[in-house]
Amino acid sequence: MLIRGTGLIGTSLGIALTRAGYAVSLADPSPTAQGLARDLGAGRLALDEPEDPDLVVVAAPPDVTADVVVDSLTRWPRAVVTDVASVKGVVLDGVRRARADLTRYVGGHPMAGRERSGAGHARGDLFEGRAWVVVPTETSTKAAVDTVVEIARAVGSAVSVMSAADHDAAVAAVSHLPQVAASLVAAQLRTVDEQALALAGQGVRDVTRIAASDPRLWTQILAGNAASLRTVLARVRDDLGELVEALTALDGEAGADDSPAVGSLEVVSRTITHGNTGHARIPGKHGAAPTAYEIVTALVPDTPGALGRLLTDVGEAGVNLEELEIDHGLGQPFGLAQISVVPAAVEPLQRALAAKGWRVLD
Amino acid sequence: MLIRGTGLIGTSLGIALTRAGYAVSLADPSPTAQGLARDLGAGRLALDEPEDPDLVVVAAPPDVTADVVVDSLTRWPRAVVTDVASVKGVVLDGVRRARADLTRYVGGHPMAGRERSGAGHARGDLFEGRAWVVVPTETSTKAAVDTVVEIARAVGSAVSVMSAADHDAAVAAVSHLPQVAASLVAAQLRTVDEQALALAGQGVRDVTRIAASDPRLWTQILAGNAASLRTVLARVRDDLGELVEALTALDGEAGADDSPAVGSLEVVSRTITHGNTGHARIPGKHGAAPTAYEIVTALVPDTPGALGRLLTDVGEAGVNLEELEIDHGLGQPFGLAQISVVPAAVEPLQRALAAKGWRVLD
Repeated sequence: MLIRGTGLIGTSLGIALTRAGYAVSLADPSPTAQGLARDLGAGRLALDEPEDPDLVVVAAPPDVTADVVVDSLTRWPRAVVTDVASVKGVVLDGVRRARADLTRYVGGHPMAGRERSGAGHARGDLFEGRAWVVVPTETSTKAAVDTVVEIARAVGSAVSVMSAADHDAAVAAVSHLPQVAASLVAAQLRTVDEQALALAGQGVRDVTRIAASDPRLWTQILAGNAASLRTVLARVRDDLGELVEALTALDGEAGADDSPAVGSLEVVSRTITHGNTGHARIPGKHGAAPTAYEIVTALVPDTPGALGRLLTDVGEAGVNLEELEIDHGLGQPFGLAQISVVPAAVEPLQRALAAKGWRVLD
Repeated sequence: MLIRGTGLIGTSLGIALTRAGYAVSLADPSPTAQGLARDLGAGRLALDEPEDPDLVVVAAPPDVTADVVVDSLTRWPRAVVTDVASVKGVVLDGVRRARADLTRYVGGHPMAGRERSGAGHARGDLFEGRAWVVVPTETSTKAAVDTVVEIARAVGSAVSVMSAADHDAAVAAVSHLPQVAASLVAAQLRTVDEQALALAGQGVRDVTRIAASDPRLWTQILAGNAASLRTVLARVRDDLGELVEALTALDGEAGADDSPAVGSLEVVSRTITHGNTGHARIPGKHGAAPTAYEIVTALVPDTPGALGRLLTDVGEAGVNLEELEIDHGLGQPFGLAQISVVPAAVEPLQRALAAKGWRVLD
């Protein structure tokens, strides 16, 4: 098979498929990028006109993906062609407009990525346990779809088959809207003074973590999903507008002896309760059922090795740690280790750690 | 001193101040709540008319805080009175409207809290290393301010002195806006189908984590900060409106041969770059200078004890672990441990772990 584009995704895919026993050729407009991908074990370099590939994987930037897909369908009239762009409607539209052969095209979106980009950060296990959305056209052959599903499974991904429209609506809500929200919240911090910023806690850090994303890539992604994204963003804008009006009404009433208008408080309350409802629907990691972990907190000396001893004791208690957060006290000689475990393990773990001399907080 | 209100904050404060050697009395409208606080070591129960306290700490819900502050200033004409509500302007306005003695009132906001509420989750170390904003009135005496600063320091908090207006503007941007954004994003997930929800990754989880917050408390907080919050929310609404218009323009141009209007793409790009700029200003945990940690990733068998052995080896390598995230592969017999360390420790740690037989990913 041929992988066209050796950035983070193309190179990671080449490494994973080579390990899985596939013969992979690589091509990239940048000789440096394709040479690096080869050196990382992603495959061999494609010659100028490689030998009639069965499958071409287009791993180019989103805004040129459709062109490279069309070019691939034309140059190799036997090949199945797929791509990995995180928007699917615009790619399909581009391929359709060019009147290319839609029976051999099947879109794809491996939902893997890292904050970093480029072949240098590629990893053969990037797709392990991640979702890979496979997006057939109305006329894709079953053989073409099976080929794409096979490589997604070969690199350890969980395959989900959707139309381009369903895919784009889904990622608008679960990926692109969160990105826009994080960016808009962080943007407000540009003009806040330092004393105010010093009050930033874990909440604003979590909400804005992905605001550090790459503007070049995300401009392509958001613009490429304009139709679906503007629908969901317009709903949020309307909700926000209603909240601003309610707060303005509440502010106007402040100082008056009357109770605030019931309608205004209801809008504020509804904002939070609707958020509760939506949040509760997010499944657990990797599609597992949501589990409400509980947290056991222990005091740990802030010295090398202490945390390791604590977690060895957690393991010896027969308890599986699900997540761990360490909170270093400001200038304190200890940290707080917050150990997430299933609820049934809380009490046994607290007893076991206390018995080993750890200070466990309630 | 007297603490009026024995929820999470009042009880935690009582435990911390009792440990620090203060004599604490407790009062709460709920006999059960105040009895529980006493049993947890937060202090003794106040008699019906306790002995002329030097200091009264009002730890009541935000929407009744002003009334309890006024009542306290009136009943104990010698006492300094402070409060712990997370909004300050409305409390000050209420006290001023009642013509109570502002020289003895100093507002406060310990920026500590947990997802849970109530005395049952109280912790004596809740305030350790957290910010505590002290909010004098224009006429608060120096002695009154010093008294409040002293108890904040006694429980390990870092004191920041601000006016009520500055405080409310600061928390609108760094706390209340992130809460509203998380809730609005999560609210959109109410109507997304299950197949789409299954695509949820770490980004949407981080952005919406605080959407699980308590609606009763947050309705009081947001309504109590209506004036400052509506200003920042209106700016976000306007930014969002501009983005919706740009995406609508981009969508209308899709399929046309023309390049998208430069203006529209610039709006999309600016959303992300402004987010980058604001995000970069958030200081490190506990007000430390921001440190860009780097991540070392190792493969860990998903069995009790394995992670403890790994972290023991991290400690023996002389490296201080800053954060740890564990990613369990879907049905895989291993997890990925992502260990955040200072950049200089990355290579030594990778070598040390590999030497001990761990599989370390690049």
